[in-house]
Amino acid sequence: MNEPTIDEIRQAANRICSYIHNTPILTSSTLDRMCNAKLFFKCENFQKVGAFKIRGATNAVFSLNDAESAKGVATHSSGNHAAALAQAARWRGIKAYVVMPDNAPLIKRNAVADYGAQIIDCKPTLKAREEGLDEVVGRTGAEFVHPYNDYRVIAGQGTAALELCEKIQKLDMVITPVGGGGLLSGTALAVTAVSPQSEVIAAEPQRADDAYRSFQAGKIIPAENPDTIADGLRTSLGTLTFPIIKRLVTDIITVSEENIVRAMRLVWERMKIIIEPSSAVPLGAVLKNKSRFSGKRIGIILSGGNVDLAKLPWMHR
Amino acid sequence: MNEPTIDEIRQAANRICSYIHNTPILTSSTLDRMCNAKLFFKCENFQKVGAFKIRGATNAVFSLNDAESAKGVATHSSGNHAAALAQAARWRGIKAYVVMPDNAPLIKRNAVADYGAQIIDCKPTLKAREEGLDEVVGRTGAEFVHPYNDYRVIAGQGTAALELCEKIQKLDMVITPVGGGGLLSGTALAVTAVSPQSEVIAAEPQRADDAYRSFQAGKIIPAENPDTIADGLRTSLGTLTFPIIKRLVTDIITVSEENIVRAMRLVWERMKIIIEPSSAVPLGAVLKNKSRFSGKRIGIILSGGNVDLAKLPWMHR
Repeated sequence: MNEPTIDEIRQAANRICSYIHNTPILTSSTLDRMCNAKLFFKCENFQKVGAFKIRGATNAVFSLNDAESAKGVATHSSGNHAAALAQAARWRGIKAYVVMPDNAPLIKRNAVADYGAQIIDCKPTLKAREEGLDEVVGRTGAEFVHPYNDYRVIAGQGTAALELCEKIQKLDMVITPVGGGGLLSGTALAVTAVSPQSEVIAAEPQRADDAYRSFQAGKIIPAENPDTIADGLRTSLGTLTFPIIKRLVTDIITVSEENIVRAMRLVWERMKIIIEPSSAVPLGAVLKNKSRFSGKRIGIILSGGNVDLAKLPWMHR
Repeated sequence: MNEPTIDEIRQAANRICSYIHNTPILTSSTLDRMCNAKLFFKCENFQKVGAFKIRGATNAVFSLNDAESAKGVATHSSGNHAAALAQAARWRGIKAYVVMPDNAPLIKRNAVADYGAQIIDCKPTLKAREEGLDEVVGRTGAEFVHPYNDYRVIAGQGTAALELCEKIQKLDMVITPVGGGGLLSGTALAVTAVSPQSEVIAAEPQRADDAYRSFQAGKIIPAENPDTIADGLRTSLGTLTFPIIKRLVTDIITVSEENIVRAMRLVWERMKIIIEPSSAVPLGAVLKNKSRFSGKRIGIILSGGNVDLAKLPWMHR
């Protein structure tokens, strides 16, 4: 399979539309005033399983033919992709195997178990994940669905921006968080095709700035001990996502932990919606670079809303 | 002025519509499954100032003629009504005086100050509030706008249910929380007129069950030391709200603190929206009386979303 075309992203949208939400797009006059811009928030925190990840997972699961799907699907993931794949597999009536680091947030672990997946624990290293995954795939014949380095997943993630650009015209830019780059690369493909005048910009935690460094260097530089509250963004770019990002993304902006938490709390307080730290990174980028974004029409993808409500970041500072 | 007619509620809707939000109505397949019912949540937590109170306050402020309004408006309130009146006064460009108990939540106090009102502190008793209010009104000639015992306010609060019934047809019932009864009586007047087949039901904290007891006794029984986390519902019914409630409301259901907190957390976790404890009381009532509500189409007014994010109820239990 090659890089998804806009037609393939539209096919993905059709394939998944009866399972997922076409999520609402919210605005906030208070935040617009604070940023001197017009912000359009695509609320994937309201999405099924609480995150955009269900788009890519569902597209991958329903792209399989019957023989492939009969053996189930498998993945390694720190959380939202795992829950998403488990849910998508349940919708199709097939098995899901999830190799999960033993330090994953409890709320995400429970979600995966609730959706009926079989969890295989591993140490929180890429190597341990990959070994666990190889073992499961070897034993079961399950189809590996990577959290982001998979064109079926990338096409699925692109459907969020597709919906955004179909509803909101004349965006100057779309900003997404970047971890492994699935959402970012899918967004870049969709936006470039349907709203070519809009820039695509990424926002990344300073403490997990591998995408920023890779973008500057022109080659993938893996994340080293990423330690950010934005737990969805600790992963490194993939060999499939990076070329798309390098070609289509204008800029990657890094955001401090303090500004991530501040942006997250602002959204909670002012918009009365629950977003996870990863979702707050784009707003953090806008708030710290006001002159750059002043007067712009900005689409922001709020990537998810899965937070442990008993452990909020402003409680520990 | 007499009890608001449906025409007067419609006039209120026209008077306030350029200032307030026609708030979204959200649904949740997870909560529907848990309740075996179809729930329609009218999201006044997304409303201006974070609560339905802006409806009544704005209607009252813009009902004044120029001579009346020139002297400003005054009220006593534990929070959301005060912020609402301050905001409405600012929209009209007049002064607002707010007599506020010194134990009001900081987030609500700050909101009132941010909207430009003058705050006059008092002890947290009805007597102290009334004395403080009399002093301010005597000194300034400001128009007193009671938090609920005012037909202009009642008509304004009724506009939320009007919007709900216009969008969602064939509701079997509409449930609101009840404190002083402004939202409940306005809802009852609106629903009875535009959706006569729908029952109107109230939900009230067990620990502030004056409305329940008044409803049973057929006369107003004031709240005695109400001690509930639902800080918006500690007030007693009013002489204007009670007759409407007695005539048009089917039932008042009381809910324990534990079930209020559980329902609140459920909405946060499953719907990813922020509601204050008062807003959770109706869902608490449904969850504890499932057989009664099974199979029904139920409108629930989520009254507000103003919560101190540094002090969440599940942190202290």
